[in-house]
Amino acid sequence: MDKMIGTSTVAQIGILVHDIEKTAKVYSEFLGVEPKFVTTDAYNQAETNYLGSPSEARAKLAFFSVGPSLDIELIEPDEHPSTWRHDLDKNGEGIHHIAFFIKGMDEKVMVLNQKNMPLLQRGKYTGGEYSYIDATDDLKIVLELLENH
Amino acid sequence: MDKMIGTSTVAQIGILVHDIEKTAKVYSEFLGVEPKFVTTDAYNQAETNYLGSPSEARAKLAFFSVGPSLDIELIEPDEHPSTWRHDLDKNGEGIHHIAFFIKGMDEKVMVLNQKNMPLLQRGKYTGGEYSYIDATDDLKIVLELLENH
Repeated sequence: MDKMIGTSTVAQIGILVHDIEKTAKVYSEFLGVEPKFVTTDAYNQAETNYLGSPSEARAKLAFFSVGPSLDIELIEPDEHPSTWRHDLDKNGEGIHHIAFFIKGMDEKVMVLNQKNMPLLQRGKYTGGEYSYIDATDDLKIVLELLENH
Repeated sequence: MDKMIGTSTVAQIGILVHDIEKTAKVYSEFLGVEPKFVTTDAYNQAETNYLGSPSEARAKLAFFSVGPSLDIELIEPDEHPSTWRHDLDKNGEGIHHIAFFIKGMDEKVMVLNQKNMPLLQRGKYTGGEYSYIDATDDLKIVLELLENH
């Protein structure tokens, strides 16, 4: 069978939190795994676009390896507009998305948009780019596509 | 570092849905993976216990392989009391839990209970047993422990 985004391997489970230092400490004790902390880039590098508009939004991230090719990613967003901030305010702390590594971001975003899965947010990180896709109608989740260049 | 439940490998991402046939079809087209359908056992085999009381609750499940050791599990619960029914009524469709395969269910459930992660639901399946743990205070998620005998 064809894979709509060229892969079926889940790479990350993204979890929104209010206080990443506090929750990362609990995860570290629970999993017995040390986190890797990252802060997303400022707008001049990340070029974050949320719902069609540029946003200064940034987030603190903490990654925990939880499988051969799977990470749990904790996300503490700042107050600027983003899918992270919106969903944390609306739904509280908890799982926000699952992520896949793909190839060909523009094409994959277009294919999903045609399938009732519209783009929420795009941006860049050192060595790659990401897109969040609203797949809540059909898949009941938010997707993240990741592409390393 | 010690692992609180003896593992840090996530085995399943559980997603609550209203109509499993409909949503499994969308997942199958999205992932390019065929689902494996299971219905949980009746009370005489499953011995389901929810919040300390026996429950007739059953669920239809659909499993999709999404990694070397990871499945997405869609869950359509019936109307009897369960963590599945409660959370679907309260939060709507979406991700419900992440699951780990462990050894020594009674001990692991006790350890987590002492760490502010109380038991929600227990039951059996052919060849094993499961427990759902409320870790929403500290880990911001519901956990499932799975033990194959």
